Amino acid sequence: MPITEDTAPPRAAVSNWERISAPVRPFLDEVTRTLEAEADDFEPEISAFVRYALAGAGKQLRPMLVAFGGGVAGGVGKPQVTGAVVIEMVHLATLVHDDVMDEASLRRRRPTLAANWGNEIAVLAGDCLFARALQRSAEFPTTDICRAISQAAGTVCTGEILQTLRRGNFTISKEEYLKVVGMKTAELFALAAELGGQLNNAPKEHLAALREYGLRLGTAYQIYDDCVDVFGSEPRAGKSLGTDLVTGKATLPVLAALELLPKTKAASLREWLSDWRSERMDDLRDCLVDAGALEEARRVLDSYLDAARAQALILPDCDSRQHMLDMVECVDRQADALAGRV
Amino acid sequence: MPITEDTAPPRAAVSNWERISAPVRPFLDEVTRTLEAEADDFEPEISAFVRYALAGAGKQLRPMLVAFGGGVAGGVGKPQVTGAVVIEMVHLATLVHDDVMDEASLRRRRPTLAANWGNEIAVLAGDCLFARALQRSAEFPTTDICRAISQAAGTVCTGEILQTLRRGNFTISKEEYLKVVGMKTAELFALAAELGGQLNNAPKEHLAALREYGLRLGTAYQIYDDCVDVFGSEPRAGKSLGTDLVTGKATLPVLAALELLPKTKAASLREWLSDWRSERMDDLRDCLVDAGALEEARRVLDSYLDAARAQALILPDCDSRQHMLDMVECVDRQADALAGRV
Repeated sequence: MPITEDTAPPRAAVSNWERISAPVRPFLDEVTRTLEAEADDFEPEISAFVRYALAGAGKQLRPMLVAFGGGVAGGVGKPQVTGAVVIEMVHLATLVHDDVMDEASLRRRRPTLAANWGNEIAVLAGDCLFARALQRSAEFPTTDICRAISQAAGTVCTGEILQTLRRGNFTISKEEYLKVVGMKTAELFALAAELGGQLNNAPKEHLAALREYGLRLGTAYQIYDDCVDVFGSEPRAGKSLGTDLVTGKATLPVLAALELLPKTKAASLREWLSDWRSERMDDLRDCLVDAGALEEARRVLDSYLDAARAQALILPDCDSRQHMLDMVECVDRQADALAGRV
Repeated sequence: MPITEDTAPPRAAVSNWERISAPVRPFLDEVTRTLEAEADDFEPEISAFVRYALAGAGKQLRPMLVAFGGGVAGGVGKPQVTGAVVIEMVHLATLVHDDVMDEASLRRRRPTLAANWGNEIAVLAGDCLFARALQRSAEFPTTDICRAISQAAGTVCTGEILQTLRRGNFTISKEEYLKVVGMKTAELFALAAELGGQLNNAPKEHLAALREYGLRLGTAYQIYDDCVDVFGSEPRAGKSLGTDLVTGKATLPVLAALELLPKTKAASLREWLSDWRSERMDDLRDCLVDAGALEEARRVLDSYLDAARAQALILPDCDSRQHMLDMVECVDRQADALAGRV
C-alpha cells in the first residue's frame, strides 16, 4: 500500500511504529500483497470497494502481533501470512460497518466508504470482506482457525452492539466500558498474537500469555484512542475527532470525570453530554483536565500496559518478545505525547 | 415458532407448504428449537434482537431443502439439523441487512428489526448472526462445511452488492438480472439441498443434482417473489410491496416489459421508473400486463421449474425426491394463483 502524503500518519507516530515493524517488514509487505490479491479476486465491480477499504489498513498492528506471536514460537511463514490476512479482513469489515454507524465522515484522512458510496454499499462490502475472511480461514487443514476467527468476530460484533445500546447512557460504570473495549477492540489483538503462536503449535501456557498480552495491549490502545477523540487534534490523528461525543459514546475520560467531579458539576456535565454541541469541545477539555480525568484515564491505561508487559515476560526471551515489549512502550509514549500536548 | 394470527402466511400458501413440510415437521421443529436456543445463548441484551429476527423465519424453505437433500441420501440426523440452523442464520442475517438497505418497513406483517431499533442495531445484529453461523459450522469435524457456508455467504453478499449497484439502471439485460438472482437467492437454496446430502456422504452426481435443483428452484422462487412485489396484494403477502420499484430495482416483469414494448413506450416506462411514485402502481400493472410482461416472466419462471424437475429426477426415486418435486409444483401453483388474481 503506497503511503501518499494524504494518507501518511503523523511523523512521530510513524517513527515509533515503523521502528518496531521494521524487523517484520517483509512479512507485513507479504500480508499487504496478499490482501491486494484478495481484493482483485472479487467481482470486478466489488474490487474497487474492497481496495478502498484496504487502503485504510493503517499501522497493521494486528498483522504485527501475528508476526511476533509466531516469532516467539519459532518464526513466521505462509500460515501466519494467511492468519494475518484473515484477521485484517475481519478488522476492516468491522471498520466499514462501524463507519456506517458512526456517521464519521473521515478515517485516516479519507472519506469513509459509507460517506463515498452510501450505507448500503458499506454494509454489503463489509459482509463480503467478512465472508472472504471466513472462506480463507476454512482453507487451513483443521477447523481450529475457523472456530477461533468466527468466535472472535462474534465477540467483536457483540461488543459493538453493547456499545451502541449504551449510547447516550452516561451512567455506565468504568467496568462496563472496559468490558465493551475488551470485546470490540482487544479481542482481535488477542486473537492475532495467539494465532501467530498457535500456527506454530506453541505450548498452551505461551498461547495463554500471548492472548492475555493482546487483551491488555488492545484495551490500552483503545483507551488511548478514546482519549485522542477528546484531546487529540484532527490533522495529527487523520480522522474526525469528537465522534464519540457526537454519537453519545461514554468513554473513559468522560466516565472518569463524572466519577471525580462533585455531584452538581457531574450532573451539568451529563446534561452537556446528552445534548452535545461541538462548539463546547474546548470547554469540555478544560473541564475534564481540571477534574483530573485525563490523569485518571492515563492511570487506567498504565495499569493495562503494566499487565501487558507482565504477560510478555512469561514468553521465552527472544527478539519477538522484545518487539512486543516495544509495542507496549510505543503506546506509552504516544499517551505521554498526547498528555504533553493538552 | 408459534404462528400467531399476526404472522400467519396467507391460507392458500400455508396449506401448500404445510402439506409438503408435514413429513419433515419433527425435523423443522428441532431446527426451530435449536435456533431459539442459539438466540438465548447470546448476551442477554442481544438475545431479544436475534429472537425478533428468528420470528421472521417464515416458511423454512431452506431447512426443508436440507431435510429433503438428506432424505434422498438416507435420512436426517443431528448434522442436518445443525446444517439447517447454520443456513437459516446466514439467511436471517442477510434479511436483516437487506432491510437496512431497502428501507422496507414491513416483513412478514411485522416492522423490520431496522425499522424498530435503527439501522445500526440491524447491521450489528446481522453480523452477530453471521458470526454465530460460522462458529457452528466450524464445529463439524472437517472444514468442508465451513468452506461451503462461507463461500455461499460470499456469493449472496456479492449478489446483493451487484443488485444495489444496478439500482435505477433499467438498461440491464434479463441475463444480468438472472445472474444476480442466482447469487443472492438461489445460492442458499442450492447450498441447503446439497448440504443435506453432503452430510450423508451422498455420491458426487447426486450432490451435483441437488445443487442444480436448488439453483433452479431458488431462481424460480425469486422470480415469483419479484412478480408478487408488482402484482401481489399486501395483506396476502404480509410485507410491503412495490419496494423494488421504490428502490429502483429492475426485476423480471419490468425488464420483460421494456423488451416487449415499442421503443417510445419503453422510453416513457423507463422515465416513470426512474422517478417512481406509488400512486402509479395500478397504471404500471396495466402497462405490464398489456405488454405481456407477466406472461413472459411466467414463461421464464416455468423454464426454471422445468429444469428443477429434471434435476430432481436424476436423484434416486424416494419420498424425499417426491417432496422436492412437490416444492416445484407449489411454486408453480402460487405463480398460477398470482396470475389468476391479476
